[in-house]
Amino acid sequence: VQISELADRSGVPLARVKFYLREGMLPPGLVTSATRATYDDAHLHRLRLIRSLTSVAGLPLARTRKILEVLDAPEGSVESMLGVAVAALSSEGDPTSGLTTDRSAYPRAFAALDSLGEGYEPRMPAIAQLEVALAAVDEVGIPATSERLAVYGPHVRAIAEAELAGIPVDGTAAVEYAVLGTAMYEPVIAALRRLAHQCIATRPA
Amino acid sequence: VQISELADRSGVPLARVKFYLREGMLPPGLVTSATRATYDDAHLHRLRLIRSLTSVAGLPLARTRKILEVLDAPEGSVESMLGVAVAALSSEGDPTSGLTTDRSAYPRAFAALDSLGEGYEPRMPAIAQLEVALAAVDEVGIPATSERLAVYGPHVRAIAEAELAGIPVDGTAAVEYAVLGTAMYEPVIAALRRLAHQCIATRPA
Repeated sequence: VQISELADRSGVPLARVKFYLREGMLPPGLVTSATRATYDDAHLHRLRLIRSLTSVAGLPLARTRKILEVLDAPEGSVESMLGVAVAALSSEGDPTSGLTTDRSAYPRAFAALDSLGEGYEPRMPAIAQLEVALAAVDEVGIPATSERLAVYGPHVRAIAEAELAGIPVDGTAAVEYAVLGTAMYEPVIAALRRLAHQCIATRPA
Repeated sequence: VQISELADRSGVPLARVKFYLREGMLPPGLVTSATRATYDDAHLHRLRLIRSLTSVAGLPLARTRKILEVLDAPEGSVESMLGVAVAALSSEGDPTSGLTTDRSAYPRAFAALDSLGEGYEPRMPAIAQLEVALAAVDEVGIPATSERLAVYGPHVRAIAEAELAGIPVDGTAAVEYAVLGTAMYEPVIAALRRLAHQCIATRPA
């Protein structure tokens, strides 16, 4: 299809499609004349992915680009690609740095992982994100006690295991699925939790 | 203490403290002369609460004000106050409207609750928030199947029950605790889930 139809079908404005082409985030079309190129389903899929990551999940361009790079240049195992891509969702820290042992930089987060025991490792950048979140609850006077963490730990872990168990076998599809699933299901889980809080709060004692 | 010390101790800029006083969100101090007033621990507590809700939880002023109104004019049971205050956290819908039966406005959310069964009611505005979140996952091609919902439902419900079981007995303190806990623990849970995803993703098969 022509670029204008690609824009229509993806729901991405034409100027934006041209921008993604210039930036190399969308691969060039097949050149058919001096001024024309055609685009196929792979382009449409790619545009929808970019749109999901930026507009729907709200990721900044730099982190969207990082995820696309992982998809375009599969390096190492599917597992390590998954790790880097999921890490790229977070604004804190470096998505490629992996495990950290710097306890003093993340005192609350390390203490929380100690209290949770098996199954959670201090991986960047989620560990930095956890530190920020724990500092905030400390500040409002509802600290994450080990009793509270003991509730979250196993339930969150069970959710994450079930989510990743359904992943496709193909490497690139797996990375896409994992990244979108991690980002896009946060609001679903938050809405269910608020709904549960409201139901429990308004339940006659 | 004087207003300048109140600002220092709360971490809220002086101009902002004066704004909250003008808006009635912070009650007036005890007038000690024509140009002076003093403030006590209740003022400090209130300022810290406003700061937590706006800066830390990121709530807009209108919804922060709604929560303060519930705290200031306790009406009805603690349960109904809790429901209104927790509902006021969400941007979608009217926090005072409670249960809804309008299935056609929230088709995905109602279908999800049908699939979850007991324990979740269609309460505004969380049901509107759920509809938006479910539409987004549909759009990226990872729909919330009943298998997936069957994973989230009981785990999220168990988390919510444990969270609200620890609530203080006193009415106003209970509302403060529930609202802050609901809002401020969302990032903690999200960080733990991302950490779990990273750990599972990078685990050797």
